[in-house]
Amino acid sequence: MDHFADRLTAAVRCKGNALCLGLDPRWDQLPQSIRRRHGDGTLAAMARAHEEFGARVIDVAAPLVAVVKPQMAFFEACGPAGLVALQRVMERSRRYGLISILDGKRNDIASTAAAYADAAFGGVGLAGRCHAVWDADALTVNPYLGREAIEPFLTSARAAGRGLFVLVRTSNPGAGQFQDLMCAGRPLYLHVAAAVAAWGRENLGRCGLADVGAVVGATHPAELAAVRQAIPEAWLLVPGFGAQGGAAADVAAAFRTDGLGAVVNSSRDLIFPYHPDESNWEACIEAAIRASISDLAAHTPMHRLAGLS
Amino acid sequence: MDHFADRLTAAVRCKGNALCLGLDPRWDQLPQSIRRRHGDGTLAAMARAHEEFGARVIDVAAPLVAVVKPQMAFFEACGPAGLVALQRVMERSRRYGLISILDGKRNDIASTAAAYADAAFGGVGLAGRCHAVWDADALTVNPYLGREAIEPFLTSARAAGRGLFVLVRTSNPGAGQFQDLMCAGRPLYLHVAAAVAAWGRENLGRCGLADVGAVVGATHPAELAAVRQAIPEAWLLVPGFGAQGGAAADVAAAFRTDGLGAVVNSSRDLIFPYHPDESNWEACIEAAIRASISDLAAHTPMHRLAGLS
Repeated sequence: MDHFADRLTAAVRCKGNALCLGLDPRWDQLPQSIRRRHGDGTLAAMARAHEEFGARVIDVAAPLVAVVKPQMAFFEACGPAGLVALQRVMERSRRYGLISILDGKRNDIASTAAAYADAAFGGVGLAGRCHAVWDADALTVNPYLGREAIEPFLTSARAAGRGLFVLVRTSNPGAGQFQDLMCAGRPLYLHVAAAVAAWGRENLGRCGLADVGAVVGATHPAELAAVRQAIPEAWLLVPGFGAQGGAAADVAAAFRTDGLGAVVNSSRDLIFPYHPDESNWEACIEAAIRASISDLAAHTPMHRLAGLS
Repeated sequence: MDHFADRLTAAVRCKGNALCLGLDPRWDQLPQSIRRRHGDGTLAAMARAHEEFGARVIDVAAPLVAVVKPQMAFFEACGPAGLVALQRVMERSRRYGLISILDGKRNDIASTAAAYADAAFGGVGLAGRCHAVWDADALTVNPYLGREAIEPFLTSARAAGRGLFVLVRTSNPGAGQFQDLMCAGRPLYLHVAAAVAAWGRENLGRCGLADVGAVVGATHPAELAAVRQAIPEAWLLVPGFGAQGGAAADVAAAFRTDGLGAVVNSSRDLIFPYHPDESNWEACIEAAIRASISDLAAHTPMHRLAGLS
């Protein structure tokens, strides 16, 4: 079974870019035509709208990007039907060979964490049977409970050639309240980064990168550079590019000089670059994806990926 | 609309105890009779088993305890059908007038956090409509992203008279890796506790307690006492009593002298105190609940609750 980091490396080399499409289906911003078709006001109808939108976005994006990141919260907000929609979105991205990063920011004490991990990656938690609810390539997790609570996620991920992205320095403006607290001479987020590096070094792929990465917001370029330096073997998942304010030049520091090591996520700018009344919205999405790829290639070492596949 | 802390106060006074029943339906430990009835090996069948088990446990527990805490992970591990089961468990506990603490440990950046909050408490996130997927009385949340990411949870909770419990010092053995890091003279978890106190003081109930509480494990008595002292107005949710190793004497420090201010959770000891082949398992659960209540009453100020309703 291939190592997660090697699969991710191959995928971004194949597409020649490290743009990650964030799939955050917000009802109020969906194309009017989809809302009208699923507009009876029930959560089940909203879930079907999310599913149709997700499927059509993936159809547009699949030839262009290597990585998609569905946000669980927007599906969960539609109840059980929303999770059926999420399963179908995951399945569709898998059929295209896309790398899926399920953004759940999950965490719990160890024996409970195993249930989340089994759901994400499949596992032996349920009566010795293997049932992956999501069958994700990677999952985002929260580090507050420490390594011991990350362990079941690592075990499950490694048994299936999957990966984790641990929150290190998040993209929200108020991220620093706890993450920047100075502990023994360095901020908390660098303690978490050091731990992520140690966990990842236990299992490097042939590409030299690890199956445990770090989430570091594009909105904090100095912190991004500090994390890149602290954990050279980790893939960085960099949210906040685009609508949240991170520019392509801001994320340059996340990449290694060979163009590997970072996946840059954009959600709203890629999936909602149009007025809801726009009928040709899929073309707008395609144009936005192409523009983001060009922008990143012009300002980061990502352009070195192209042609290496 | 009643304040969450006042509702919780009334509920524990009415029952005369502050025991919280943790509903963690682990397939391997379910009564054999239930597993056999829902044993076709599909996730949907496991979900139905969780639902039947949850319903019967609530029927036994409802006359005895005031608070239940369903663990989302075990329902999520059964996929969409598991979340249907969770909805029914939540509905049943609501019909009994129990206070439900949904244990999801959710968190995300602000605009996404709103989707989780709307799911938990209802809200205006989905096209101006109010749709609570879970209709929980309280939700557990993770503080790593800071107040700004807690804000949507607070807004949603306060609009509906609901509450939050923020992870402060978790019950797992490895909790200290980051939570105990010393920052400016005190450990990280006390920085989080101070923040929880500040957030809660914005909205105290008539009982003098806040709608934002703290999760502090029974397995760390010294830290529990430190948090109680640091945040006198907060309800503490104390997991880890029982199977995880916390004794009744260990949790005494979580209570105020009037017996209020703490809810002590036990999961495995209450819902699985029998061999799976035991046919009279509901009687075992009832006995375990009564024993835990007596144990807590003998060793904590909780006994002062009785007779005050």
